[in-house]
Amino acid sequence: MSYEDKVRKVVPYTPGEQPKIKNIIKLNTNENPYPPAPGVEKLLKEMDISEFRKYPDPSCTVLVDAIADFYNVDKNKVFVGVGSDDVLSMAFLTFFNSDKPILFPDITYSFYDVWANLYRIPFRQIPLRDDFTINSEDYYIDNGGIVIANPNAPTGLELPLSEIEEIVKRNPDVVVIVDEAYVDFGGVSALSLIDKYENLLVVQTFSKSRSMAGMRIGFAFGCPKLIKYLSDAKFSFNSYTMNMPSLYLGAAAIADREYFEKTTSMVVATRERTKKELSNLGFVFGDSKTNFIFAIHPEREGKEIFDYLRSRGIIVRRFDSPRISQYLRISIGTDGEMEQLIAVLKEFLGK
Amino acid sequence: MSYEDKVRKVVPYTPGEQPKIKNIIKLNTNENPYPPAPGVEKLLKEMDISEFRKYPDPSCTVLVDAIADFYNVDKNKVFVGVGSDDVLSMAFLTFFNSDKPILFPDITYSFYDVWANLYRIPFRQIPLRDDFTINSEDYYIDNGGIVIANPNAPTGLELPLSEIEEIVKRNPDVVVIVDEAYVDFGGVSALSLIDKYENLLVVQTFSKSRSMAGMRIGFAFGCPKLIKYLSDAKFSFNSYTMNMPSLYLGAAAIADREYFEKTTSMVVATRERTKKELSNLGFVFGDSKTNFIFAIHPEREGKEIFDYLRSRGIIVRRFDSPRISQYLRISIGTDGEMEQLIAVLKEFLGK
Repeated sequence: MSYEDKVRKVVPYTPGEQPKIKNIIKLNTNENPYPPAPGVEKLLKEMDISEFRKYPDPSCTVLVDAIADFYNVDKNKVFVGVGSDDVLSMAFLTFFNSDKPILFPDITYSFYDVWANLYRIPFRQIPLRDDFTINSEDYYIDNGGIVIANPNAPTGLELPLSEIEEIVKRNPDVVVIVDEAYVDFGGVSALSLIDKYENLLVVQTFSKSRSMAGMRIGFAFGCPKLIKYLSDAKFSFNSYTMNMPSLYLGAAAIADREYFEKTTSMVVATRERTKKELSNLGFVFGDSKTNFIFAIHPEREGKEIFDYLRSRGIIVRRFDSPRISQYLRISIGTDGEMEQLIAVLKEFLGK
Repeated sequence: MSYEDKVRKVVPYTPGEQPKIKNIIKLNTNENPYPPAPGVEKLLKEMDISEFRKYPDPSCTVLVDAIADFYNVDKNKVFVGVGSDDVLSMAFLTFFNSDKPILFPDITYSFYDVWANLYRIPFRQIPLRDDFTINSEDYYIDNGGIVIANPNAPTGLELPLSEIEEIVKRNPDVVVIVDEAYVDFGGVSALSLIDKYENLLVVQTFSKSRSMAGMRIGFAFGCPKLIKYLSDAKFSFNSYTMNMPSLYLGAAAIADREYFEKTTSMVVATRERTKKELSNLGFVFGDSKTNFIFAIHPEREGKEIFDYLRSRGIIVRRFDSPRISQYLRISIGTDGEMEQLIAVLKEFLGK
């Protein structure tokens, strides 16, 4: 007998690299190329550090109010956490307590099976179709809960809202989580359905469209009962997860609708230009509604392209799982960064 | 059947009030009355918000290095989290996987049973002696893990390090967590024992002695194997729990040893003066080694004193559990705040 028998042993999630090298073009973790809204800087400079000695507001009022205002929903339908990972992790812990397997696609955010393993939740991975789209009818089976990333990652593809609704409607006895980390780059949110379906939780983040990955802010929408269950679990885990900078700077970031619309449009425009360029170079990819493109080149090995880009100071992301090992997930940077990417790819392909 | 059958229902921890009223004297959540080290303000003003668009360093190098430097331990023996609540919560999840009950005192930090309930960990609460001291021999029984707050809260009393060592030594087949949230106000840390005992995890926080409750930083020391298990679980929960401000401002806060020693000494001096004053007013309390005093007045109801203080703008903390319902937990504020407390208590007692 040893204390090690009592250890919960897990295979942790491996996040994308955060290299400390300067002057690289970092297109590997789907960060926004633009800084947060200008109001964030102003508030940061005005912040009174003597307040840091006190605990932050455990109900996160300032931030919850700002999110509720922006989306025009009631405050009791909003939950906040330390990035959408924290929100999703708490949601798995709270809502997926059943002997039946939870369902999610075989190719999706690679944290879902990690959380299921951590919490000993049985799960079943439903294969995407060959074109990487989700067949919603696959989710009309007995299960312990459902989580769908929409748009999906790393594929970038969106399931139409009508099909999301059908999945939610046909599964009234489980919670359906729709993970909308990338929805602001052209997708349609399921937020409009939360008043109609009590079993729907919609999760979003400040890490992509709000340019605040470094601040760790995620949030969820659901009916007040669902949010209450989630909050109770959260308050049983840690009363004060959101520190003062995240509460105040997060509120400042979301308040600026004009900046948000401008920067997300810029990312979308750069994405569409990049699609054309990649297409000209022979790359193949679906219709991404996210801030990345998931592309394959029919004539070259994914690993070979990845290594060449890296040797030229451009980092993209690859995954080892068999169905997608030839693909590269390329985050959308600035126009200048994408031009450099295209130039290096041309060089590599001899074009 | 309903989705609610699958919800993990819990009774959440209730944190001390964070009132939004101005001009109150807040002695209810053991915050430090002094602001963080001056280096924190300097760094805050220099912070480059354009960096916020990127994910923070998942290995928290800047902060881990600063803690390792301050305590002169190897980096691979240090773990950081979102306050010691996050560290303790992850440690419960990681180390307490046994059918045998974990052990902790009946009067202690009231989050321990909340975590045990959240994670479905069996537990047994060991009564403190009548004088609120821990009888270490009570912990020489078969168990699934042990957690001891030392100094204990809300009693403020310290178990001598030799007795902590004996508990650790006699329980080699479980992890023993020593929660040292208050150790910097005159206690002796078990940090010196981590190289000797592989099953010992020592947890500390920036919330009290570092004046950074609002920033949410906690940390743990243990042998590299223990820290690895804890990190693996943490990376299965959320890769990026520490946001950029907490990493950089935390490192700045811990770097200033002189300020730390000065402010903790000031709190200790104020506590000792307050003890004398409270004693003169007939209050009874043990020898607190923390930044609070846990006191009872033999002739007056705890609730009555609490309400009177509150009516005069002074908030302290009370607990409803039977053995301690007559006690007040009074955080140590500035000398001026404690003088006002004493003045109001004199008024109340007619002295």
